[in-house]
Amino acid sequence: MEKKSKWIKLKNRGVTAVNGFKSSGISSGLKKGKKDLAVIYSEHDAQAAGVFTRNLVQAAPVHLCKSHLENPIRLLVVNSGNANACTGEEGMQNTVEMAEQAAAGLNLEARQVMVSSTGVIGEQLPMEKINNGINKALAGLNRGPGADIAAAEAILTTDTKIKQVAYRCSTLDGDFHLAGIAKGSGMICPNMATMLAFLVTDVRIERELLQKLFNEAVNSSFNVITVDGETSTNDTALILANGAAEGVEITAEGHGFDSFKGLLNLVCRELGCSIVEDGEGLTKVITLTIKGAADQESARILSRSVLNSPLVKTAFYGEDANWGRIVVALGYAGVDLDPDRLDIFIGPYQVAANGGSVPFSEAEMKKILQKRDVSILIDLKQGFAELTAWGTDMSHQYITINSDYRS
Amino acid sequence: MEKKSKWIKLKNRGVTAVNGFKSSGISSGLKKGKKDLAVIYSEHDAQAAGVFTRNLVQAAPVHLCKSHLENPIRLLVVNSGNANACTGEEGMQNTVEMAEQAAAGLNLEARQVMVSSTGVIGEQLPMEKINNGINKALAGLNRGPGADIAAAEAILTTDTKIKQVAYRCSTLDGDFHLAGIAKGSGMICPNMATMLAFLVTDVRIERELLQKLFNEAVNSSFNVITVDGETSTNDTALILANGAAEGVEITAEGHGFDSFKGLLNLVCRELGCSIVEDGEGLTKVITLTIKGAADQESARILSRSVLNSPLVKTAFYGEDANWGRIVVALGYAGVDLDPDRLDIFIGPYQVAANGGSVPFSEAEMKKILQKRDVSILIDLKQGFAELTAWGTDMSHQYITINSDYRS
Repeated sequence: MEKKSKWIKLKNRGVTAVNGFKSSGISSGLKKGKKDLAVIYSEHDAQAAGVFTRNLVQAAPVHLCKSHLENPIRLLVVNSGNANACTGEEGMQNTVEMAEQAAAGLNLEARQVMVSSTGVIGEQLPMEKINNGINKALAGLNRGPGADIAAAEAILTTDTKIKQVAYRCSTLDGDFHLAGIAKGSGMICPNMATMLAFLVTDVRIERELLQKLFNEAVNSSFNVITVDGETSTNDTALILANGAAEGVEITAEGHGFDSFKGLLNLVCRELGCSIVEDGEGLTKVITLTIKGAADQESARILSRSVLNSPLVKTAFYGEDANWGRIVVALGYAGVDLDPDRLDIFIGPYQVAANGGSVPFSEAEMKKILQKRDVSILIDLKQGFAELTAWGTDMSHQYITINSDYRS
Repeated sequence: MEKKSKWIKLKNRGVTAVNGFKSSGISSGLKKGKKDLAVIYSEHDAQAAGVFTRNLVQAAPVHLCKSHLENPIRLLVVNSGNANACTGEEGMQNTVEMAEQAAAGLNLEARQVMVSSTGVIGEQLPMEKINNGINKALAGLNRGPGADIAAAEAILTTDTKIKQVAYRCSTLDGDFHLAGIAKGSGMICPNMATMLAFLVTDVRIERELLQKLFNEAVNSSFNVITVDGETSTNDTALILANGAAEGVEITAEGHGFDSFKGLLNLVCRELGCSIVEDGEGLTKVITLTIKGAADQESARILSRSVLNSPLVKTAFYGEDANWGRIVVALGYAGVDLDPDRLDIFIGPYQVAANGGSVPFSEAEMKKILQKRDVSILIDLKQGFAELTAWGTDMSHQYITINSDYRS
């Protein structure tokens, strides 16, 4: 707890609050009149760690990022409006060209550039617009709140708000920073269900340790949010650590380890929750805690099954404490559990004990379910693993948004 | 093909078109004013085979049916309105009591009775109503179109129509019959997403062979339909074979084997499709064929992933040939495939070749997508397995129906 007090949130700030990073966001013409191309530049070589979509169908830039992970990274280029997915050999060449074009503008090598794309699937990138856009964006690299927002804006698709967070943290060795931007709203336009997150920090850290800590943080944040259970071809979470905070080195035994790890978890969770909160069409944010699970993986599978169940989601939309649907979703998740031991709480009220119903006041429950934030607690009484995950209800608006014709 | 011509569909007939079976359906008071209790009686001991929900949470009657499978079955009792699921020890006792009550009325043993329930989860059965209802139903056992319909009606929950089918088949050894009833509409009221199917036949057949053939038939019918991906606590498909068709014995090498097997597949498929067709709120029935799969199981998993994807379902509701969403759903299904070899057709038009887009006429495609029946063909080009599955779109009406408060 004492460590938590050392984290200072930097209001209205994003990636350039971190030492040695500049950013920019411009309109390249992919999305008429809107910002659609972001760059984040590091003045020093940065260690990179990444977590990528598990979808077998992976967009060209995902392949590029994976192959560049062990390189000294200096630049991240992100376009929105076109996912460069299902685009074959030409798509791969276009991603490489983006890296080359950006590298040339800053006298870097293409291997020092990460590329990310989000938008429509199956269409080739308009490379002339992209290349001109990259030059324009590089020319605009800057620091400060304006540069933060420009980058955060340019990666959005149908999001209704920018998602950025920045923290400063004091350690015995000095201050460091961690910041990030994200995009994704799940209930979104055709072909744009991608989740992207880009974090930057100025600590010095070995790549392997960074990857390990990032995996853990992503697992309990971006990987436990779900809006509709879809996994995109482009999902990407990247972190760059450039060591620009003099003297702050994170090692497994060092002073700053707990602070960095804790803050990394916090930032990932804040960005993840901001994606859920921005789900278009949602009327409820559901916080689901599964306790007493045999292990984390079981808890994760169960949480996804419950939060992705159309019948659970529509029940909450209807403000109905329909715990039977929760039990059904647990039962078909494919995880071993004892239905006769299940305890379920909705808000503060127990609705099931040992798999059977518990009487509750419908009037009191109605008050709980009318709120925007609803919590569910499920105790499996099997083991000691616990997990909290976030989801949404499913509304008429979800259908409206997602049945709109491609545009 | 010559065998097919020997199958004669018996219009407007159901289970009592089969020799040695009587049925009845009455109102016991569980569902006010509606039929809610069905019985199907066999004059001879019948071999039984069953396929049950894979949900770990299984209703009490599912447990009873499983334990009675190897017994000589004479009677099937089904109530709608209450699923007797998540009802613990008392629920199990109530199911046993239903079997005992029914057996007593006909001088049978409880072990000769199958019980099935569908409806609300988590509430105990009102046993006085149930027991009186069983007596009333047994008193009404009869043959003929009226008795067929009464039983088919009494098992429904929110279905909008009865689902029954009956066939006579000629073989060298004589005629036999196969008939069945089903209930389920998927897009349905809270807690009532159960699929039930009850088939009867008058052939003589060993239990093991019957179970084997029934497994195969269910796998390519009830197990490849999906409306919302939910698997209920009560899903049950049962077949009873009472041997009343003199001289017709089905053995693995006998004359009638192909006829029986083919007809069993046909009846299961017809009943399965009638469930999809009755999906409340659907505007499209999607027939998905996956070919070139490595094996049947891969094809099955992929078909479910595509047909359960909210983004695919809403795209078809929006009459949008959004093949990118199909690729995404294939990619996250957890089955090994090569995205760069995928061919996809919607109706007669190819929309993707080797994982990339193929130009098509939006105007022509619109004509295809405006129809109620839409077909998708996916060629994985991996192997030789092929599977056809059925699903629906997801409409505003789906949300409306499923967000209604429990009633």
